[in-house]
Amino acid sequence: MVHNGIEYGLMELISETYALMKQLLGFSDDQLHSIYSEWNKGELNGFLIEITVDIFGKVDDKTGKGLINEILDVARQKGTGMWTSQSAMELQVPVPTIDMAVMMRDLSVFEDQRRLATKIYQSQVPEFDGERKLFLKQLHNAFLVSMLTTYAQGFALLFEASVKYDYHLDLESIARIWRGGCIIRSAALKDIQAAFHLRHDLPNLLLDADLSQKIVLHHESLSLIVSQASEAGIPVPGLMASLSYLDAFSSSWLPANLIPAQRDYFGAHTYERVDAKGTFHTDWTKK
Amino acid sequence: MVHNGIEYGLMELISETYALMKQLLGFSDDQLHSIYSEWNKGELNGFLIEITVDIFGKVDDKTGKGLINEILDVARQKGTGMWTSQSAMELQVPVPTIDMAVMMRDLSVFEDQRRLATKIYQSQVPEFDGERKLFLKQLHNAFLVSMLTTYAQGFALLFEASVKYDYHLDLESIARIWRGGCIIRSAALKDIQAAFHLRHDLPNLLLDADLSQKIVLHHESLSLIVSQASEAGIPVPGLMASLSYLDAFSSSWLPANLIPAQRDYFGAHTYERVDAKGTFHTDWTKK
Repeated sequence: MVHNGIEYGLMELISETYALMKQLLGFSDDQLHSIYSEWNKGELNGFLIEITVDIFGKVDDKTGKGLINEILDVARQKGTGMWTSQSAMELQVPVPTIDMAVMMRDLSVFEDQRRLATKIYQSQVPEFDGERKLFLKQLHNAFLVSMLTTYAQGFALLFEASVKYDYHLDLESIARIWRGGCIIRSAALKDIQAAFHLRHDLPNLLLDADLSQKIVLHHESLSLIVSQASEAGIPVPGLMASLSYLDAFSSSWLPANLIPAQRDYFGAHTYERVDAKGTFHTDWTKK
Repeated sequence: MVHNGIEYGLMELISETYALMKQLLGFSDDQLHSIYSEWNKGELNGFLIEITVDIFGKVDDKTGKGLINEILDVARQKGTGMWTSQSAMELQVPVPTIDMAVMMRDLSVFEDQRRLATKIYQSQVPEFDGERKLFLKQLHNAFLVSMLTTYAQGFALLFEASVKYDYHLDLESIARIWRGGCIIRSAALKDIQAAFHLRHDLPNLLLDADLSQKIVLHHESLSLIVSQASEAGIPVPGLMASLSYLDAFSSSWLPANLIPAQRDYFGAHTYERVDAKGTFHTDWTKK
């Protein structure tokens, strides 16, 4: 199930890189074929990138044109991604990239409403006025960071499930088996396997010394891609969720202190303090 | 349940505006108290903003300082937001702002790992070099759009559940009842009630003529706030999910065509075509 959750996340991330290159840079199928081909030769190598290369090279027997453009933009599902998100929520483990991948499949199905909304909102992607080469480099790195972050979410879910349900999962073996061959097989799993080899009880891959260095190096690319997509009006919820996860996970302070205050205000749910153990309640309206 | 899901979404969005004003603009509790006070007098008026005003004015009996800063940034839950997200996934209705609100509460609880990650990633919020007044106006409008989008997600869930489970829900009455008094009571519910009065079978509030005009007007503010937060490294998954929902819902084309292609490639799950009814399968590796 978690394998398939990660698969949903990676597929969503790839489709967002496709949208950015097609809509913002105006890339043709041939150009997309070349870029994914190039990506597949390096750090981004993996089964899903491999098949994406083939997909952008495939000619439709019926029209003689690229088959990808004849396919309806509605992504259906058998529910394993949904099941991952639902289980993660049950275990209270954040897997936002997977959540957003499930969400986007669900949203794509609302075709009729989307067509109506298009007429009302009439949003247009502005012309790209940046440097294409730089953008492509940032996109490559943004995908790398998001991909690692997605694996991190999936493995963190396995870690917590193993503790909670007493599964005694061997995360190194899982990484090794996935490397051997499966839909989420990728070059990145080599580093992931190494991280768990070094520390079998690593609760989150973002805490690994080598992987975190790679993420630190390319973090800015992800910020900049999200920022550009946001301003261009191209939806990239998977990239955004990966960035949010990363930024929130590495925040010493989160505005999450406001939420217990609000909950204590309206429901006397109590709050915890930074300077003392225990739970506390305040009459917030008392002057 | 859906009321509480929307409540989770709005609380997350408010906490993100708090983070942006505190971390990016360096606002004190007094300044935050003033801003939320001002917001509460206009279009953003509502119970959750009202209590936020009080919270930033509350002095801690123990330390004599602002109580908010003595509260631990760990947001616990009783599970009603989670239940909303899980049910929405079951019904295949996208509620991304609520998903991200649940996710951020879950993430906040991983305190120990967050403290470790802080040391590794050492990210720092850069100094703000924009115009403060403009930023505050954009933030106001970004919150307005996100709030409306969150209500839209909740009501769309009610609409779909009503169809699927034969509930015969009267969405106008629900908006009226919520306006009367509850945690998500707000000025916005007046417009929402009017939208359902005009059209009882409105499947999504984003398709209402008046509400959509308001959203179109302030959409750019949300894009720009997300872009600035992204570059500053401040996690705003709720604002991002609202923007993604809006941009995806109003997209005539989504890169979701790649996903059925990938699914058909690796699992023969078939795909739909733009030019014909039915489902199709391709041998993608055949040259």
